Amino acid sequence: MNGEFSPEEKDGFYKAVFSRRDVRSHFTSESIDERVLSRILNAAHHAPSVGFSQPWNFILIKDKQTRKKVKDSFDKERIRSSNLVEDPKRSKYLSLRLEGILGSALNVCVTYDPSKFGPFVIGRSSIPETGIYSVCCAIQNLWLAARAEDIGVGWVSILSNDDLKKHLEIPEHVVPVAYLCLGHVTGFAEKPDLETAGWLNRLALKDVVYYEKWNNNSDPSWQQIREMIISNLDYA
Amino acid sequence: MNGEFSPEEKDGFYKAVFSRRDVRSHFTSESIDERVLSRILNAAHHAPSVGFSQPWNFILIKDKQTRKKVKDSFDKERIRSSNLVEDPKRSKYLSLRLEGILGSALNVCVTYDPSKFGPFVIGRSSIPETGIYSVCCAIQNLWLAARAEDIGVGWVSILSNDDLKKHLEIPEHVVPVAYLCLGHVTGFAEKPDLETAGWLNRLALKDVVYYEKWNNNSDPSWQQIREMIISNLDYA
Repeated sequence: MNGEFSPEEKDGFYKAVFSRRDVRSHFTSESIDERVLSRILNAAHHAPSVGFSQPWNFILIKDKQTRKKVKDSFDKERIRSSNLVEDPKRSKYLSLRLEGILGSALNVCVTYDPSKFGPFVIGRSSIPETGIYSVCCAIQNLWLAARAEDIGVGWVSILSNDDLKKHLEIPEHVVPVAYLCLGHVTGFAEKPDLETAGWLNRLALKDVVYYEKWNNNSDPSWQQIREMIISNLDYA
Repeated sequence: MNGEFSPEEKDGFYKAVFSRRDVRSHFTSESIDERVLSRILNAAHHAPSVGFSQPWNFILIKDKQTRKKVKDSFDKERIRSSNLVEDPKRSKYLSLRLEGILGSALNVCVTYDPSKFGPFVIGRSSIPETGIYSVCCAIQNLWLAARAEDIGVGWVSILSNDDLKKHLEIPEHVVPVAYLCLGHVTGFAEKPDLETAGWLNRLALKDVVYYEKWNNNSDPSWQQIREMIISNLDYA
């Protein structure tokens, strides 16, 4: 388990990274096998965490009443957000499918509990936010593992956390970090929905990498990696 | 690329998840091949991001002078943190190896730029923190890709972000999210260092999963998944 990766193992890993999608409109109602779900959750639980604090919890939600309440919260926030932009952007925004709360087989709320193993957590004293960052790493593990299991995931962030805390009886000191929809899908899209819809394009890798300092991309000692990044732009 | 995973592809993916480690003391000074590094960065760049905002940047740092300054910041913060606990915990904390800033081949600072594609980013109006959460997903992609490429990663969180911003000339509105050390390693440990050192144990998966509501783990309609989670505890 701890050795080098074979080419096939490496391909499997990268396939999860590059074919993972934020799924909204391709869910089927087929339920998720318990064995599959337990593997996905276990992958999430094996994320890195600051000071090994494992500050995450996963609330699995099937109940339709709860999901309808969450969907109501989404509907309210969606209208509120749309009023922050003007047409034609507003109409485009309202035309996008942005959640699969009721259409997916399962919802999962991932939370951050700062009190776990606290108050002193190694590595969390200087930058307290690292606790919540750990939970995000767990979410990304969950998302990729779901893809490897052929399960789609969509992250709904157009929500009121106050509503969520009320509906899921989450205590005051615990933070809801993500509200995820999971389920079988009719297929995984080739590209992100927002790219296909012409909302935004993917940036070139070369435009997000700097050398030695912020905004420095001309350092000659880095020429080889720069050329590699530029020439390999389409290798995904 | 978008189809189901073969058993070998799935194994490759899970191998990355379960054998990834937070590396501090097993770095060698061998430099990282540019092709390998560009693949790792490209995996990070293919993380999900709220509204497809791709708000991350990666500053690659080899310069020893800069790294010494960052190491000084670590040394100061480590002593400051140690004074928050009392012996014997304090001595144990001070005995742990918690960074590989100078011993690794490369340092990478991953940052969050909220102004990218802003101010209106789809899905970021209700929960603004989702921007920084996207950067954390990119960090986890980077970490796992590095493991698949046989490269170790250590996240140094005992640091002052003010120091970092000064040394790397990061503008006021940009947030340093992670300071990572990357490099070849003599090996990947079987377990997290803090588990081996007896600092904390890994929680059982069953203890981080709830059903329908916070702190509810007795719902009979969830019995099958509960049993699966309990019986498969050691499948990693």
